Amino acid sequence: MSEVDKVIELAKRRGIFWPSYEIYGGVAGLYDLGPVGVRIRNKILNIWRKFFIENNKEFVVEIETPIITPAKVLEASGHVQNFTDPIVECTKCHKIFRADHLIEEQIKINAERFSVSELNEIIKDKNIKCPVCGGDLGEVRLFNLLFSTNIGPYSGNTGFLRPETAQGMFTAFKRVYGTTRERLPLGIAQVGKVARNEISPRQGLIRMREFTIMEIEFFFDPEDLEVPLDKFEDDSINVLLGSEKIKGQENPVQYKLKELISEKIILNPWMGFWMATANRFVNYLGIQNTYFEEKLPQERAHYSKQTFDQIVVVKGEKVEISGHAYRGDYDLSRHSKVSGEDLTIFKKYDSPRIVKKKITIINKDKLNKEGSNFTKEFMKNVMSHTVEEIEEMINSGYSIDGKKISEFITVSEREEKETGKKFFPHVVEPSFGVERCLFLSIANAYTEKKDRVILSLPKSIAPYEVAVFPLLDRENLIKKAREIYDILKDKFDVIYDDSGSIGKRYARVDEIGVPYAITIDPQTLEDNSVTIRERDSWSQIRVKEDKLTTSLEKLFSGEQFNKLGEENE
Amino acid sequence: MSEVDKVIELAKRRGIFWPSYEIYGGVAGLYDLGPVGVRIRNKILNIWRKFFIENNKEFVVEIETPIITPAKVLEASGHVQNFTDPIVECTKCHKIFRADHLIEEQIKINAERFSVSELNEIIKDKNIKCPVCGGDLGEVRLFNLLFSTNIGPYSGNTGFLRPETAQGMFTAFKRVYGTTRERLPLGIAQVGKVARNEISPRQGLIRMREFTIMEIEFFFDPEDLEVPLDKFEDDSINVLLGSEKIKGQENPVQYKLKELISEKIILNPWMGFWMATANRFVNYLGIQNTYFEEKLPQERAHYSKQTFDQIVVVKGEKVEISGHAYRGDYDLSRHSKVSGEDLTIFKKYDSPRIVKKKITIINKDKLNKEGSNFTKEFMKNVMSHTVEEIEEMINSGYSIDGKKISEFITVSEREEKETGKKFFPHVVEPSFGVERCLFLSIANAYTEKKDRVILSLPKSIAPYEVAVFPLLDRENLIKKAREIYDILKDKFDVIYDDSGSIGKRYARVDEIGVPYAITIDPQTLEDNSVTIRERDSWSQIRVKEDKLTTSLEKLFSGEQFNKLGEENE
Repeated sequence: MSEVDKVIELAKRRGIFWPSYEIYGGVAGLYDLGPVGVRIRNKILNIWRKFFIENNKEFVVEIETPIITPAKVLEASGHVQNFTDPIVECTKCHKIFRADHLIEEQIKINAERFSVSELNEIIKDKNIKCPVCGGDLGEVRLFNLLFSTNIGPYSGNTGFLRPETAQGMFTAFKRVYGTTRERLPLGIAQVGKVARNEISPRQGLIRMREFTIMEIEFFFDPEDLEVPLDKFEDDSINVLLGSEKIKGQENPVQYKLKELISEKIILNPWMGFWMATANRFVNYLGIQNTYFEEKLPQERAHYSKQTFDQIVVVKGEKVEISGHAYRGDYDLSRHSKVSGEDLTIFKKYDSPRIVKKKITIINKDKLNKEGSNFTKEFMKNVMSHTVEEIEEMINSGYSIDGKKISEFITVSEREEKETGKKFFPHVVEPSFGVERCLFLSIANAYTEKKDRVILSLPKSIAPYEVAVFPLLDRENLIKKAREIYDILKDKFDVIYDDSGSIGKRYARVDEIGVPYAITIDPQTLEDNSVTIRERDSWSQIRVKEDKLTTSLEKLFSGEQFNKLGEENE
Repeated sequence: MSEVDKVIELAKRRGIFWPSYEIYGGVAGLYDLGPVGVRIRNKILNIWRKFFIENNKEFVVEIETPIITPAKVLEASGHVQNFTDPIVECTKCHKIFRADHLIEEQIKINAERFSVSELNEIIKDKNIKCPVCGGDLGEVRLFNLLFSTNIGPYSGNTGFLRPETAQGMFTAFKRVYGTTRERLPLGIAQVGKVARNEISPRQGLIRMREFTIMEIEFFFDPEDLEVPLDKFEDDSINVLLGSEKIKGQENPVQYKLKELISEKIILNPWMGFWMATANRFVNYLGIQNTYFEEKLPQERAHYSKQTFDQIVVVKGEKVEISGHAYRGDYDLSRHSKVSGEDLTIFKKYDSPRIVKKKITIINKDKLNKEGSNFTKEFMKNVMSHTVEEIEEMINSGYSIDGKKISEFITVSEREEKETGKKFFPHVVEPSFGVERCLFLSIANAYTEKKDRVILSLPKSIAPYEVAVFPLLDRENLIKKAREIYDILKDKFDVIYDDSGSIGKRYARVDEIGVPYAITIDPQTLEDNSVTIRERDSWSQIRVKEDKLTTSLEKLFSGEQFNKLGEENE
């Protein structure tokens, strides 16, 4: 069994996740999170909120927008046209495959982002057949990954399930900006479900048809480069640049964040701010082996000026855990244009600026004397042009009915005071999938020791912090254990268990990653001491009951288990 | 402007909620939650989790299942057939209306749950016309409220957006039961989005096309009546019974929970457990005026044996804030039948039971002698019956080819030991809509004072706990205010604001329900004292900076504002 399969088997057995609708045979790409999975997920979510929202609460707010999205929003955003994958159908057995993946599997080349005609050509040249029945493949075509539905009782009112939460933030931008004091930068965060009708979902939580995104659309003034990077300045970040990839380089290089910014390797300092935050967040989940890979232009989504994928390497697999796209003003300007609503904001200058503006002055008296037909011709041929074009026409001696237009119109320059200007904020977008974070945290924590499994999760995302067990199935031990459970449960996430052998109970909590187990044994009834067992080392120490809470508090604030043992000897 | 309209206007102005996709004209029934709305919503959600999950963590776990649901699941659950509303289309302008609502509006009767033919009859009898163009209405038909889509690239693979989270818990029941020590009772909780394609969504967050449910499917052994009701025993609950409704009674009556249980007014004590929990939860949100209305059989959903809606009365409107359905074994037995998976559980008896079982004994020698044709006839005519039927046949002298079957077969009784039995757990379901809780909390807290609006939210769900303001736009005051903000922000949810006049800032935090505002003024720089202003009374007291944290802690643990003022004089 591969390492990843072992993780999936554990997840099923211990209530972390499993395929949805199992009793009906399941649906590819849909997973349930079980009781243990939801507990870990909720902790990851809270940590993300802390790193991305609470720590930046002066300029980041959270909103929630619907999953169901009217067609016009996703037409404007370009998803109806561009959010596609190439598919190819077998002409014999009519099975459908993702064309690029099929090519990758069969002839081992990277076919991501090849055009439809390139894919067709490869299939023909390499004589690729249906991997199921060996039949001839048809023509490659693009399949749109949006789930579509109909909104309301009238037919033809198409809606889609959103493939990203982002469009909800763009369409609500003006309202959020207005209710949060009209200041930039403004980060609009959202945590919510999205759906993508994948052709071939992968096993586990990596490529799902429905999943939860945690993302921020971060709006800023591209001319304002004052970014609070102080706390990240000395952070080191591993990056595999696009320019290196082209040369065939596959390994990332370590950079200081300030280098990446000052040398403009990262196009905008705010992008660096969020990449550094993402780096710290992923490390906090216990995952050390992480780097950012710059996407090549043909690998980027249609809206992006620059994209870095944050890659983690877990159990030999490289998986994208977050994406960082510089969306520029693509979305706001698109929605502005399509909806007809002005989504620019007004920036007041510190002091008014004097700008020179060219204006045209028409000699009406002279024009009127030429009669209405001439005036009409003049308006049509001249006034439809910009002032610069008119100046050019005058200079080149342009005439109507043999009369030079310079007789009727002149261009002059005027000074004007501008107090500010309208512009579209630019956007960078750090975006995580919750289930990927969950899956990768678990895969990363999965370890085996003497044929047994330990889930060495960081304490901060363990589903429970402490387990409480009576050693034996005796009434007096159970009573005492429940007393201790009641004392601990207000301070810690505690799980109580009195069924089965103590060995099985230890194994069970090791497998779901509970860092410490407290056992109440006959000695407890004599001297009020209990044992604390450490998940990762299986070491045990005895502490007095009245020191239990403070001992656990010490362990959770980082004290070494051995050291605590010595103190209690 | 009606009271409810005022609440909606406030919500829009202050970033609590607003119609989604406003720049494209909006979509009926879809709302965004803004920055303030999400903060309040998150607190309500956490409180629900505490009341319903954490306080019962020994028997309630949380899971998450997908929104996208394959057709067969909702066919088995009965939703594809029954989750409908009656609609009627104008034959002239082709506008579509919800037939029962149209009748209710036009002739002021309660038309809920009328059959299609009854609705058609009323429209004909009362000569009801299209309210838009006056045209004739067509035939009433049933419209299914499930949003439908297609899963994967093959057409015909229909999926629906779930209209409730419940089916995810039923289809995952066996797996959850298996990973949580196979014990009843077992509550499976879920918080997640659902979608209902309403014909005529209402304004505000009351009837939405997409909303978040917080619900529990609570599985129990119907023979086990040991329910931990002690803590609720003296709780009083207002109930309007179905039997009273039939008599025309519209006002609820106050009962003790124990009465409702002992007199079997509530069919199952677990239902009482969750209704009492719901009652306390809603009171905790600051809403006092609440009662439970029993639904009449024709008003209940297809799966329910008994339903109580929890009604709150806010600003003169009666709104259902939660539903409590006794689903019995409807869902598990349906899914068992349709999927072919055994969803019963095995209950071990405390001690094995001796049961008498009737068995048939065939005299094979005698039967063989009659030849194979007779044996065939015998098997076909006799052995296809149950043992009880065979006994009946023997007693009545049933013959084949003139030979009494009693010559070939006898029925005898045998004692057997049974160690337990298989059964379907029963289910009660307490179910809340998050957005309704949010909307009703806000509507309930909305008050006006001297032409100004105060949102008197309970402190536990206020979007921020404390606001910090420098009185004037002066550098030294701003610096001091930020220092105080930094001190408070680790202990409280704090918002800082230095823009606009102090009066406007007070008004703004009053309108979003911040209970206390701290102001730093010139006197602060002299004597290190700041003012605390109370939202509801607009009273102010001065406290020394070094006593600020403890003063606020006292206020949040319930100390009266006036009393604190006296202490600090």
